Amino acid sequence: MVETSHPGNIGAAARAMKTMCLDQLALVAPKVFPDPVAFARASGAADLLEKANKYETLQSAISDCQKVVGITARNRKLSAPVVTPKELMQQMLSETQDTQFAWVFGRERNGLTNEEIDLCTTVCTIPSNGEYGSLNIAAAVQILCYEWHVAQLDAQHANAQLNNPALQQVAAPVGEREGFYEHLWQTLDKIDFLDKSNPTPLMRKMRRLFDRTQLTHAEINILRGVLKSILKQ
Amino acid sequence: MVETSHPGNIGAAARAMKTMCLDQLALVAPKVFPDPVAFARASGAADLLEKANKYETLQSAISDCQKVVGITARNRKLSAPVVTPKELMQQMLSETQDTQFAWVFGRERNGLTNEEIDLCTTVCTIPSNGEYGSLNIAAAVQILCYEWHVAQLDAQHANAQLNNPALQQVAAPVGEREGFYEHLWQTLDKIDFLDKSNPTPLMRKMRRLFDRTQLTHAEINILRGVLKSILKQ
Repeated sequence: MVETSHPGNIGAAARAMKTMCLDQLALVAPKVFPDPVAFARASGAADLLEKANKYETLQSAISDCQKVVGITARNRKLSAPVVTPKELMQQMLSETQDTQFAWVFGRERNGLTNEEIDLCTTVCTIPSNGEYGSLNIAAAVQILCYEWHVAQLDAQHANAQLNNPALQQVAAPVGEREGFYEHLWQTLDKIDFLDKSNPTPLMRKMRRLFDRTQLTHAEINILRGVLKSILKQ
Repeated sequence: MVETSHPGNIGAAARAMKTMCLDQLALVAPKVFPDPVAFARASGAADLLEKANKYETLQSAISDCQKVVGITARNRKLSAPVVTPKELMQQMLSETQDTQFAWVFGRERNGLTNEEIDLCTTVCTIPSNGEYGSLNIAAAVQILCYEWHVAQLDAQHANAQLNNPALQQVAAPVGEREGFYEHLWQTLDKIDFLDKSNPTPLMRKMRRLFDRTQLTHAEINILRGVLKSILKQ
């Protein structure tokens, strides 16, 4: 959090983080901190305030991070790519565990300066009311932390399904799929379904259909069994 | 909001609502309201506070609503179905526009009573830290309003895609799919691929494969053309 004016917002942000299992709060030149108002608003998350690190500049706060995400209101003319919170969480999940991310929240009134945005590798904007998009800073922290928590739960759930043999539906490798397509062309040719002067449009449609279904190894075996029976006729 | 103790939370909730394009705030027996603290925290959302309706009881506040959603912390033993915010938004999107929903937020310390929960048709719990799930009430309002706003944007986006002929990929109606399956069984029978003593497992696998791909009308026509050619052999 950069140059936060109201200590209450710092406390509320700490509470928002803790409810969603995040705990590393960094404060860049807060106007008033530590302060009893921050601790009151933090409720049961005082531990996060106690171990929060204070920095003089944003640059020093993010020096250990590989990815720096500026959280900004909409409609900025920026060079960095702008993502939604959901897109950001997918990016974060796709990184290795060693990648340190920082989310940078700006001042209550003016957000982040252009120089601070330049330090960011990504910019994230929370979708909001075009006529009144002024989220409270701790509310913005709450949304980001919530999305991260939910994205992790979803990823755990997806992993559990992948490891459940009853639900296992792994697409066959490309080589197997190509073998099936080769076999399919031969068969369509044999039954005179392929227009030899221009076979591509049909083949493309078939590929689109079967690629969409993500054929498994077992399914390819069945389909090739069918093709074999047709060719035997 | 039921019996909210702190006027600041009412103001913060109004701001959270307005940032996500919601504007009907109902207050059931608030401890202190109206109050300058509420207006200060509402920032640019004072209009929502001015037109907020005050009620004596929850029952009177929800009397015009068809669906009433209690927002509660986790781990309650409840008879009503418990959904996540994302699931709730999908339910809301699937209802007709005439269906009035109420989201019911409880007291800062004790949430909703069992009698209040009994008035709810659905219960929604925000996923949170198992060891510290104590979200500030306005932060919970912010998350729900955000999810609703994002769900509506996604639905608009999906509709726009549906209406874009270039992206049109509408699954064929069930009757057409069944016609294709009937044709497929005949063909598999003709080429002696079907085990007549026990055809069901193969037919089930085929259905699973093709149902997953959501065949379009045009694709079913192509596949049935292939089957016709095989039967002609």
